[in-house]
Amino acid sequence: MKMEEYALVVAGGKGTRIKSHLPKQFLEVAGLPVLMHTLHAFNRYSSTVQIILVLPEDDFGLWKDLCQRYDFQLPHRLQAGGETRFQSVKKGLEQVPDNSLVCIHDGVRPLVHENLIAASFRLAAIHGSAVAAVRLKESIRMIDQDKTQALDRSRFRLIQTPQTFQSDLIKKAYQVKEDSSLTDDASVAERAGHTISLFEGSYENIKITTAEDLVIADALLQSHKK
Amino acid sequence: MKMEEYALVVAGGKGTRIKSHLPKQFLEVAGLPVLMHTLHAFNRYSSTVQIILVLPEDDFGLWKDLCQRYDFQLPHRLQAGGETRFQSVKKGLEQVPDNSLVCIHDGVRPLVHENLIAASFRLAAIHGSAVAAVRLKESIRMIDQDKTQALDRSRFRLIQTPQTFQSDLIKKAYQVKEDSSLTDDASVAERAGHTISLFEGSYENIKITTAEDLVIADALLQSHKK
Repeated sequence: MKMEEYALVVAGGKGTRIKSHLPKQFLEVAGLPVLMHTLHAFNRYSSTVQIILVLPEDDFGLWKDLCQRYDFQLPHRLQAGGETRFQSVKKGLEQVPDNSLVCIHDGVRPLVHENLIAASFRLAAIHGSAVAAVRLKESIRMIDQDKTQALDRSRFRLIQTPQTFQSDLIKKAYQVKEDSSLTDDASVAERAGHTISLFEGSYENIKITTAEDLVIADALLQSHKK
Repeated sequence: MKMEEYALVVAGGKGTRIKSHLPKQFLEVAGLPVLMHTLHAFNRYSSTVQIILVLPEDDFGLWKDLCQRYDFQLPHRLQAGGETRFQSVKKGLEQVPDNSLVCIHDGVRPLVHENLIAASFRLAAIHGSAVAAVRLKESIRMIDQDKTQALDRSRFRLIQTPQTFQSDLIKKAYQVKEDSSLTDDASVAERAGHTISLFEGSYENIKITTAEDLVIADALLQSHKK
């Protein structure tokens, strides 16, 4: 029997927010707020995947207002986030039942393709985890005291989301004590002793963090409409 | 006295060319072929920097034709490249006199800002080398046999160009025997025993390698015109 599938879309702790700036996930690119593109990607993958959107509670009103303005009808549940990404994911996972699959995804990665989501669910069902990763396009150096040294870039992968897990595994892993080295869900699962399975991500699947990233995302999303 | 400044713009070996496709450096983005944007960036930095453009000899005709069509007047010298990037740079360096500074730059990085070029010349004059590098935006994992492990991303840098050097240093370094681990000029200089100085690059300074990169570069270049 196919396991139930959940999407946990994580859209920002409230910790480092600059009050005067609207967070990137609410900004419009290619005609829609970033987050709506992200949720649409999950819906394109499957209309039965259950979407949990983790937002700072302070932004619930803004989000509902945006949903009305853009006539956004896609079913999803809201979950109040915590101070950090770790806390937000942990809270979101409380809404996910055991014996299911959960795809954890950054809200500010609106360019995720439905095929990437599909691959992550399929592989996590088999391996317990499935983490999107890409090869390095550029050379890499490691800082070693006051020097740097060239490394063989073929041995490294940059990590994206989706990061999909069997829910029991990742919920248990998130019982670990939070620390700053746990930068993503894969590192949390690894801390709990699990071997992480990577799969091929996509260079298009960018994380919007800067103003330039918005320009880039807009251009890529527009080019898909053509 | 200020040292003479050279720009070595490297635009593709001919090794892996697919015959039917025009290389990315000749494609038009934001109204101009990629390479012309790149050369303009050097000219914006300084009208006295001497530009050497390394191209496959087979493409000289195409380039001259493009220069006519786009009425591209910017002074530059052409140098026939070799089979690999290593060979192309080595040939280009033969045109650069001793006791000067040479800024080696990928032709397909048209978004390099003149301030980045300026910083690289300034720092290379002091330290012997100046290599643009950026911090990782994403988590990184290392492949270790059949497993991967999370690493502390703050210890790594992704390497871009410009990579600027005192000419004697880099010309001598390029006497080394070519091998596949020498993926950039910094690694060649390092092989010759030099300590590499990094400076802060820019996320905008992308290397155009895919069709999506063309869309991205076009959007970023257009946004600069506004």
